[in-house]
Amino acid sequence: PLKVLMLCMFCLHQVMHADALVLLGAESMEIPSTWVRPGAAIIRCESILISNVVQSCSRWLQEQQYRPWHLHTLKLQPLNPVPSDIEISRAQTPKPIDQLAAEIGLLPEELEPYGRSKAKVRLSLLDRLHSQPDGKYILVAGITPTPLGEGKSTVTIGLVQAMSAHLKLNSFACLRQPSQGPTFGVKGGAAGGGYAQVIPMEEFNLHLTGDIHAITAANNLVAAAIDARMLHEATQSDKALFNRLVPSVNGVRKFSPIQISRLQGLGIHKTDPASLTPQEVSAFARLDLDPSKITWHRVVDTNDRFLRKITVGQASTEKGQTRETGFDIAVASEIMAILALSDNLGDMRGRLGRMVVGTSRSGKPVTAEDLGVSGAVAVLMKDAIKPTLMQTLEGTPVFVHAGPFANIAHGNSSVLADKLALKLVGQDGFVVTEAGFGADIGMEKFFNIKCRASGLKPNVVVLVATVRALKMHGGGPNVSAGAPLPREYIDENLSLVARGCRSNLRKQIQIAKLFGVPVVVALNAFRTDTPAEIDLVCQIAKECGASDAVSCQHWSQGGRGCLELAQAVKEAARQPTNFQFLYKTEMPIVEKIRTIAQKVYGADDIQVSPEVQRKIDYYNHQGYGSLPICMAKTHLSLSHMPDKKGAPTGFVLPIRDIRASIGAGFIYPLVGTMSTMPGLPTRPCFYDIDIDPVTEDIIGLF
Amino acid sequence: PLKVLMLCMFCLHQVMHADALVLLGAESMEIPSTWVRPGAAIIRCESILISNVVQSCSRWLQEQQYRPWHLHTLKLQPLNPVPSDIEISRAQTPKPIDQLAAEIGLLPEELEPYGRSKAKVRLSLLDRLHSQPDGKYILVAGITPTPLGEGKSTVTIGLVQAMSAHLKLNSFACLRQPSQGPTFGVKGGAAGGGYAQVIPMEEFNLHLTGDIHAITAANNLVAAAIDARMLHEATQSDKALFNRLVPSVNGVRKFSPIQISRLQGLGIHKTDPASLTPQEVSAFARLDLDPSKITWHRVVDTNDRFLRKITVGQASTEKGQTRETGFDIAVASEIMAILALSDNLGDMRGRLGRMVVGTSRSGKPVTAEDLGVSGAVAVLMKDAIKPTLMQTLEGTPVFVHAGPFANIAHGNSSVLADKLALKLVGQDGFVVTEAGFGADIGMEKFFNIKCRASGLKPNVVVLVATVRALKMHGGGPNVSAGAPLPREYIDENLSLVARGCRSNLRKQIQIAKLFGVPVVVALNAFRTDTPAEIDLVCQIAKECGASDAVSCQHWSQGGRGCLELAQAVKEAARQPTNFQFLYKTEMPIVEKIRTIAQKVYGADDIQVSPEVQRKIDYYNHQGYGSLPICMAKTHLSLSHMPDKKGAPTGFVLPIRDIRASIGAGFIYPLVGTMSTMPGLPTRPCFYDIDIDPVTEDIIGLF
Repeated sequence: PLKVLMLCMFCLHQVMHADALVLLGAESMEIPSTWVRPGAAIIRCESILISNVVQSCSRWLQEQQYRPWHLHTLKLQPLNPVPSDIEISRAQTPKPIDQLAAEIGLLPEELEPYGRSKAKVRLSLLDRLHSQPDGKYILVAGITPTPLGEGKSTVTIGLVQAMSAHLKLNSFACLRQPSQGPTFGVKGGAAGGGYAQVIPMEEFNLHLTGDIHAITAANNLVAAAIDARMLHEATQSDKALFNRLVPSVNGVRKFSPIQISRLQGLGIHKTDPASLTPQEVSAFARLDLDPSKITWHRVVDTNDRFLRKITVGQASTEKGQTRETGFDIAVASEIMAILALSDNLGDMRGRLGRMVVGTSRSGKPVTAEDLGVSGAVAVLMKDAIKPTLMQTLEGTPVFVHAGPFANIAHGNSSVLADKLALKLVGQDGFVVTEAGFGADIGMEKFFNIKCRASGLKPNVVVLVATVRALKMHGGGPNVSAGAPLPREYIDENLSLVARGCRSNLRKQIQIAKLFGVPVVVALNAFRTDTPAEIDLVCQIAKECGASDAVSCQHWSQGGRGCLELAQAVKEAARQPTNFQFLYKTEMPIVEKIRTIAQKVYGADDIQVSPEVQRKIDYYNHQGYGSLPICMAKTHLSLSHMPDKKGAPTGFVLPIRDIRASIGAGFIYPLVGTMSTMPGLPTRPCFYDIDIDPVTEDIIGLF
Repeated sequence: PLKVLMLCMFCLHQVMHADALVLLGAESMEIPSTWVRPGAAIIRCESILISNVVQSCSRWLQEQQYRPWHLHTLKLQPLNPVPSDIEISRAQTPKPIDQLAAEIGLLPEELEPYGRSKAKVRLSLLDRLHSQPDGKYILVAGITPTPLGEGKSTVTIGLVQAMSAHLKLNSFACLRQPSQGPTFGVKGGAAGGGYAQVIPMEEFNLHLTGDIHAITAANNLVAAAIDARMLHEATQSDKALFNRLVPSVNGVRKFSPIQISRLQGLGIHKTDPASLTPQEVSAFARLDLDPSKITWHRVVDTNDRFLRKITVGQASTEKGQTRETGFDIAVASEIMAILALSDNLGDMRGRLGRMVVGTSRSGKPVTAEDLGVSGAVAVLMKDAIKPTLMQTLEGTPVFVHAGPFANIAHGNSSVLADKLALKLVGQDGFVVTEAGFGADIGMEKFFNIKCRASGLKPNVVVLVATVRALKMHGGGPNVSAGAPLPREYIDENLSLVARGCRSNLRKQIQIAKLFGVPVVVALNAFRTDTPAEIDLVCQIAKECGASDAVSCQHWSQGGRGCLELAQAVKEAARQPTNFQFLYKTEMPIVEKIRTIAQKVYGADDIQVSPEVQRKIDYYNHQGYGSLPICMAKTHLSLSHMPDKKGAPTGFVLPIRDIRASIGAGFIYPLVGTMSTMPGLPTRPCFYDIDIDPVTEDIIGLF
């Protein structure tokens, strides 16, 4: 399957797509990077004897083959009581990341280390292993959670620790990169917890390999370009604008490629600047953005509530062009959603160009490509597209890549990390990836948006539940962060548990099965859960259609506490699947929304206001009608009403607004008000965080 | 000089400050990181025979010694005409960064690679080599430049290429990390140019190892903390605030260390929250920031002019607490100035805590420590404190570290990079570091601020001049970016050159000599310069007191074009120096400013408004009176008037405003309006920048 092109020094052409370049009798010759595609091998043969050449090529071909894993796991000796997350993380010394990479069959040239415990992995791996069959693809989703969260991340990590370190099955966890905002605010980290963690947890939670910083820079470059362009258009004539946009350099005027792309979008098929009519000059030079219809926000990766709504342009240098706008948290940027859905560099470049930033006064969408900034944005994102390799507490591999918001975006880690991992684990291996929020949101979007973009088909859904959340759905009192847990959640209460299982858990199992994928229920066991409660959950889950249901003790025991789950997943992955999308993208937008509302949420119908209908008509007119739907709904209920627990019925889902992420490739209807910028409480986490200047240890990070 | 502590498993104590831990008969035992200081070696001896132990320790001690360099340089074959910067950069394959590190005597454990061509270097190196004598310390400064810049960075790089690659003298360049804003705006990159560059130039100019992103995150966390705190104070009683700031956790109320630090600052020496009087509770819980006296700005690393002046807090969730504020470019953050001046992690932590963010209604300064956020800020900066190692086009080593604004801050790269480099080059080696702007600003601050903070003494100043700038100072017509250069600058004109030398060049040489440091003038030669012009500059420079004056062709020839300069610097470094500061810090603030204005700028006197005097009184009252001065003045003239070229006299320097960076440790008087946020022009650089999705090559980056 490898294209190997052999050539002597006299016929160097058409080598760009070869996997390897064989040089005969030219041992020390330098090969310019433009001669070969990135990742292509250069095989140098001193001799030009054909037998030697064949030998060199065979050796190279063998090096390129899939390599079986030789994983050295790290031993865990769990303590009781379980220490803090950072104490557990610090007590374990991670393997050097290049050692882990070698153990799982990565070639040294496929790795870009960032310090000693994390590394980016090059996408050329996908070319090298493109004929290698994929492993099994496992999604971890959850029932409708309490505001405290039910432990999907820890289950994901515990499961791969069990598979790789205990059952000796190749497995990979694919996780989202967390925003730094909540790390210093209220939530704490996202590297798992207890004895199911990614280490070093402080590296996972802070900066990582800079992807979110790259997104922030890219997003804000687009924003700066928008406002600066409006100012320049407002203060210059068509001719002055055109002369500056297409300046004469040494007497020659030339459009840049990105400007030709804009001209073509305008239907002007000319390449000589002098040949444009005055009307064409005006159409080209003026984006004519309507200041009241700019949808692009700036972002920061900080919980900064005072930036939710701001007025910009108040300095005298901006000549009165003030405008109301706002900042979102960085992970809410459309560029994050694009990173998560991109299949390769070219695909990402195309999506970045299609991002719509606002509307012109004549009602046309204006894109990043029109602004001339999409190439620069792609350049800022060139390293971010490579997933980051880390390890669990037991030394098993993890990819961390992308982390789009789970409400206004699709809340899933990247397509590329999953694809790389599926090749690396091999045919009999497992890739465990996590979807944000409950299964009604994260899983639905995983199937209908992420799998549609990637073409991948999942084998098993792991549905995470807790006795605590089930009791809440069964009618238990309100659970809220900060307040002490009511007694119902501490004492045994089988009837609450049973009612919770027969409402929310049953419904979430049914949703997964709608898509034709088998479900294993993972009960994330707490110290206060009784054996009778645990047994009851497992029994009802199986009655409701789960292939299996088991309890997990990964938080206190690591992988050993997830062995039963790992066995259950392995069994379920043997079942044939019949994966199908819930809707066809060609369906009208309203029908797609209705399908999700009725089949997934259990709504009777949807209610679409005339304003929303007007926007839908506009999207159809612009050719966006066949994009998939990304619902922006509360994760605290199957309905749009956060206090309706269990499996609500008899409601009509109101579509209050509708927006579009054209670059990412979805339409997102809003069912409620979604906050895209968290705030800091009176006493944020940062009060406890510090660094020891002597040991360099971080203190107080959860 | 190394403290080696030998101990058996039964007496493990007080090992924290040892340079090495020797374990006897415990080969495979895990050593918790808390037992030893970072960077300490762990020597494992299987045998407990004392002879073996001594042998192991000797071997280890030898490994710790200074290692002579074995530099493999990269060959240059300069083309004519000189291609674009990115073409030159891409045509040269950099050495793997770990190879370069080994060549210059770094131990593998001192390196943290970020990809293949850049790596952070651990500060433990300073401990290992603390008894190694420093190399020679060379500063590159410039005459007053035209708006086009006169090539200080290229001279710096050309000089080390000449020294290391041609004269086989160990040398290191220490450069500032550039802001990404101008990269996409008007200026282009800062990695040097032509055949004197740091490679890969796109890595140098984009993201690098994330230090500026870390500064942005840290700066904006402080800003979010300020506004959130004001909101919470405005909407809660003393008691409610106190209960939230010092919550009861499992029935126990405790101050965090950072809160105890605040209490002590308030003169309250109590540790039990219950023991505070209501007055003390109020004093502790209320920072009582005056919204009109907040000096802390948010930052982005983007040229976003619309953020110069904004109103924040306009969402209803912020309850009407709106406030006017602004964003600066990230490199203008005080945290950047702190990074550049810090001597170690503890020093940086202390400075971050002392940063003053505003003033309380009762007139007290409020610090980051008072906000409880300085520990978290230090944690965000823990990797940024390590300098980044890269290489020149000829494979010689470069540190890139910190890049504070040269107007409102001191415009010099980091103390730590210089210190690491001075140890690495060895006693006979050279460290070449660059100061921003002209010598009247960058060099004056290098001496009076940076050298005062570091304790380092410079050996030689290289003063960069161009025939172009000298003609301007000699009375040539206006030079401005974008406009074609007038004929005077292209044709030979000896009288303009002579007048420029006898005014600005003479004065800048005199300034360097005020500090007791010998000066070598480096004439950065352009294609249009005639031999007579070049000779004239060199002749007059020597008449004016330069130890030597030579022309350089590094841009078109690389290190080979800087050989004469390298020889001249080597000679000058043999001279004894008599380095002295221009003023003592104990002098009154006004006297310090007057000294700089008169001795450096050539002013008759300074003019201090009553408002500035009032602020000076306030600084004195707060105990800030003995900080050094960091002038904020235009770089386009020795005076405060950008159009006064040459060496103006007979003027009075107006001090229009005065501010303080208490964490960084200087007072900065403003002589004019300093823009701290650049803008985007009608056609920013980003129009030409793109990435080839197949080759992954970056296009159009200068």
